[in-house]
Amino acid sequence: MKTPLPIERLVAQLRRLPGIGEKSATRLAFHLLSAPETQVTELADSIARVKREIVLCAVCFDLTEASPCPVCRDERRDAGAICVVEEPADRASIERSGGWHGRYHVLGGALAPIDGVGPRELHIAELEARVRAGGVKEVVLATNPNAEGDATAHYVASLLKPLGVRVTRIAYGMPLGGDLEYADHVTVGRSLANRRDL
Amino acid sequence: MKTPLPIERLVAQLRRLPGIGEKSATRLAFHLLSAPETQVTELADSIARVKREIVLCAVCFDLTEASPCPVCRDERRDAGAICVVEEPADRASIERSGGWHGRYHVLGGALAPIDGVGPRELHIAELEARVRAGGVKEVVLATNPNAEGDATAHYVASLLKPLGVRVTRIAYGMPLGGDLEYADHVTVGRSLANRRDL
Repeated sequence: MKTPLPIERLVAQLRRLPGIGEKSATRLAFHLLSAPETQVTELADSIARVKREIVLCAVCFDLTEASPCPVCRDERRDAGAICVVEEPADRASIERSGGWHGRYHVLGGALAPIDGVGPRELHIAELEARVRAGGVKEVVLATNPNAEGDATAHYVASLLKPLGVRVTRIAYGMPLGGDLEYADHVTVGRSLANRRDL
Repeated sequence: MKTPLPIERLVAQLRRLPGIGEKSATRLAFHLLSAPETQVTELADSIARVKREIVLCAVCFDLTEASPCPVCRDERRDAGAICVVEEPADRASIERSGGWHGRYHVLGGALAPIDGVGPRELHIAELEARVRAGGVKEVVLATNPNAEGDATAHYVASLLKPLGVRVTRIAYGMPLGGDLEYADHVTVGRSLANRRDL
């Protein structure tokens, strides 16, 4: 006798999430069944709303409720310094470190030719346009410290340096092979403070 | 500059799930933001529906779409044998093993006096009523192999044995694929004590 269909369906949906296997999905489904009605409704509501209410910032391509995003609108943030990251989660991680007071640019990933991700799949041309528009003194490349992130940083650096802007790379205060999204804020902060010219 | 509110709210909701911490919740939230719209909608829908569409079986207290549940309605399942489990997830696990062809009874937990869970908080009286109604030859106590599960099994056994029904407990032993070196000494001891002739 099988598990009731609504539960099976929920388990199948949960299994598609990263890091959630068959057992975790089953445990989560049964947890939701025994959780208070309001908690379950709120979760479903939050999931349904998050995609509707979030758009990409037209300037920096970060996730935001309204474009341009609060950072791009904030006059107190140094518009002459742009921190380039791969994903919105990386931007959030840097922001948590408290070590950055400039603006951001979210590439939307890293160069990965094998997976078909070339420069055109990322928001690199838009970054170049921001620099060409003038007023930018420094671009900090905060792509992840791994092969794809390094390759992306070097590619972006080769495009921007001829424009006369200072291009730096976050320091290897980051553990090698690590992921910005999951780094602790002190490491992220040191890594920013120790940035070097490329 | 903070993460947009809809994302913060979703992360807070996800963190309330078992086994999901701050980092997992953040990763899941950003995954959902980049996932296809249909997948996200389906997940939200499945979560919202699962509680509405699932009720407790009036006979065995398992989760079901319609009471009595398919197992309790199935004439091919031996009504003379009842497997007693703590939670619906345990019933699902036993069903997956393919080793049980009788009916079930879900207690809704295990005795835990410190947490205020006594016999009245569990579906023990209903189990006793099922046995008293007649026709039941064996009750297998498949509560979890820990202190609470053992105490619950012994309590239920003490209630049912005077009714003349056979009461058994699932076997303790080494898990399949387990490693003696890393098994706890209680399991190894039970596994030895329960040894069988080959």
